[in-house]
Amino acid sequence: MKQTKVKGQSKAKKVVVGSTVKVALLGFGTVGSGVAQVLAASKFPGLQLTHIFNRNVERKRASAGAKFVPASVVWTENIDDVLKSDVDVVIELMGGLNPVEGWLRKALTAGKSVVTANKQLIAYRGANLAKLAGRHGVQLVYGAAVAGGVPVIPGIRQGLGGDQLTRLSGIVNGTCNYILSRMEAGADYATVLADAQQLGYAEANPSADVDGFDARAKLCILSRIALHAELDPDAVATQSISTVEAIDFTYAKELNCTIRQVSRAQVDGTLVHARVAPMLVPLTSPMAWSHGTQNMVVASGRFGGDVVFSGHGAGGEPTAVAVVSDLLAVAQGCKAVELPVRKRETTGEFLAPHYLRFVVDDKPGIVSAIAGALAKVGANIDSLLQKPGFPKHRLPFVVTTEPCLTSTIEKAVASIAKLDCMLEKPLCLQILVAEDKPE
Amino acid sequence: MKQTKVKGQSKAKKVVVGSTVKVALLGFGTVGSGVAQVLAASKFPGLQLTHIFNRNVERKRASAGAKFVPASVVWTENIDDVLKSDVDVVIELMGGLNPVEGWLRKALTAGKSVVTANKQLIAYRGANLAKLAGRHGVQLVYGAAVAGGVPVIPGIRQGLGGDQLTRLSGIVNGTCNYILSRMEAGADYATVLADAQQLGYAEANPSADVDGFDARAKLCILSRIALHAELDPDAVATQSISTVEAIDFTYAKELNCTIRQVSRAQVDGTLVHARVAPMLVPLTSPMAWSHGTQNMVVASGRFGGDVVFSGHGAGGEPTAVAVVSDLLAVAQGCKAVELPVRKRETTGEFLAPHYLRFVVDDKPGIVSAIAGALAKVGANIDSLLQKPGFPKHRLPFVVTTEPCLTSTIEKAVASIAKLDCMLEKPLCLQILVAEDKPE
Repeated sequence: MKQTKVKGQSKAKKVVVGSTVKVALLGFGTVGSGVAQVLAASKFPGLQLTHIFNRNVERKRASAGAKFVPASVVWTENIDDVLKSDVDVVIELMGGLNPVEGWLRKALTAGKSVVTANKQLIAYRGANLAKLAGRHGVQLVYGAAVAGGVPVIPGIRQGLGGDQLTRLSGIVNGTCNYILSRMEAGADYATVLADAQQLGYAEANPSADVDGFDARAKLCILSRIALHAELDPDAVATQSISTVEAIDFTYAKELNCTIRQVSRAQVDGTLVHARVAPMLVPLTSPMAWSHGTQNMVVASGRFGGDVVFSGHGAGGEPTAVAVVSDLLAVAQGCKAVELPVRKRETTGEFLAPHYLRFVVDDKPGIVSAIAGALAKVGANIDSLLQKPGFPKHRLPFVVTTEPCLTSTIEKAVASIAKLDCMLEKPLCLQILVAEDKPE
Repeated sequence: MKQTKVKGQSKAKKVVVGSTVKVALLGFGTVGSGVAQVLAASKFPGLQLTHIFNRNVERKRASAGAKFVPASVVWTENIDDVLKSDVDVVIELMGGLNPVEGWLRKALTAGKSVVTANKQLIAYRGANLAKLAGRHGVQLVYGAAVAGGVPVIPGIRQGLGGDQLTRLSGIVNGTCNYILSRMEAGADYATVLADAQQLGYAEANPSADVDGFDARAKLCILSRIALHAELDPDAVATQSISTVEAIDFTYAKELNCTIRQVSRAQVDGTLVHARVAPMLVPLTSPMAWSHGTQNMVVASGRFGGDVVFSGHGAGGEPTAVAVVSDLLAVAQGCKAVELPVRKRETTGEFLAPHYLRFVVDDKPGIVSAIAGALAKVGANIDSLLQKPGFPKHRLPFVVTTEPCLTSTIEKAVASIAKLDCMLEKPLCLQILVAEDKPE
């Protein structure tokens, strides 16, 4: 086959086979030292780590991970040492938009390819940075930005480009999955969150994880890759997992479900339905099998049905695998398949059955009032669950509905929330339904 | 980054962006017409189907799938019409070694890239054909040869190249999975096989599937991609699923397991342990979740732990997705990451717990004789299971052992088989144990 020559590449300097690709590492934390470790262990021919940039670099140089770093490496606190050097690839593991975006723009402009695990940067600025990379005949790759060591991005780009993917659903935040799968086993939210913080799975301020902002960035990246839809991360609906309680797992189990933070997106003409929220997941769904910090993504195509990717979504070594795999692809000049991406509006609306959990000071007429509020918006009750053993004055019970729109059920819940007997804000969760075409 | 230029590519004719990549299809069966359908539905810019080769081409031209084929396409029974044309990519969906190998060698030599789903050809001749492709600056890609629509090959090549993968285990034969998962639900082997044949999942002669030869070819391809080990398919140990009976699922369930045809390979220095056989799989393992014709591959790495890929492993449309995805990659000049592959010897030996099922004419002393034979080879009994309700004169019962070598247990089984009371050849199955590193 004739090799198709991409426009931007014509500007790229060519190197001959066997020459060395020089690599700089920005950020020497858990993932950075993982990358050094993987490179040291595998000694891929033609790759040479030449620079490590970090603040307080002397502290890093004295850290345990430094033992994997060749003596020839330049350790620096001055980003210009990297940007003005002859490194070919910059690996960015700092995170955040500033000042990283500016540095990477300079790197791309200087003809250096970029490998990054920075999901916020790629979610917000990925399209723009990719254009810049194209103009300079270099690559921007970010397989590590979603699902750590699980090759979802390369798998979809290289292996599912021929399908028309229409739906994505996944568990892409290991912290939430750790918390919820521990709660499934009986622990309560506060205890598990504290454990997660101690284990280093959750930040001191856990909001980015538990409120869905981290997963939202990843969902936007996946939407670009899989659905060819560019979404505004700030426009994607999110719901915190922090209001899910132990009792919800008890009721979910009655419904043959568990609860997971699910990120889902679905193409609907020129609109994309997208939401990151705790949802009820059937125990028969692959997503229910995902425990601890595991990640899982289900990509659903018109022709190929559901494809599942799962594995370790977090941690230094799995994420380092994704980074080094990207680095190998860049070093060997392996571009990814590119298909046209379009800007798309998003809506948080889904047509789905819903789980409503109320905590009430029980008195006659409550069920009737709830049923009335649901009937008023046209939502049909599918089941009503009330476990015995709870005090009447603080009684949790559950109503599930037949499929209805998110906005419809939210309207009903808002009016139910105003009932005098309601002791807490009602919890409203989508119930996921398997949709893969039958075999 | 400087684009690394691969030696062979220097010979390749260059085409400019926007030019059309001409595509020929060899074989217009289920997958071939699926490819035509996917191409017609998605109208990828720059791809043009120009030739279809098939025997009895007029019959194919009148088939339902032909409605997806543009009027401009040349239908032919003469392979030279393709080989001597100016097509850029040949998609081969005929299967088998002869005469396909010769045709594809001619195509590669003529500067045409090849996309194929031919697992036997790639298992036996892949390394050789890849060299030929390299010499002529063209590509040979075969993502559809393993696991149909599940992007295991591109996912591993592009996304796990940075890891050191040491183990593979998978369900890569949809026919066996259909049979065994139906048996799990209570059906017997002969009935299910007949159903599978009627549904088109199994051939009239089912040996390639049920005896493990199809899966063996796929395991060898995966070993090359994932373990960088070139195996001789004929040297890989296989065991038929045809001796598994309904009763084995009953006993497996007692052990919190089910039974699947598992293909596994494991690196051990310069040796690769490889085996395709029905095995007991824990219900908590991803492989137990795979039903019907689904495929699943678990790739285990030193750094990234277990990564799971699953989805529809067979069928025209899912396989067509893999073919068209490969075609897009070739058309866009996206090469896969290449890492050095080495020839490796294989052994069928595994250190594993084993499940032994005996059918005996019950009399005193049998358990003692079996225990004695096991003790003689040093295999420790882990459990002894005997379900009630079977006639004494035809009693099935099960012994499980602690981990021991395949050859060791086979030696014991051979001596037990000679006992007078044995009414059938004992069934000996490996029991899979989860080995992913703990989180």
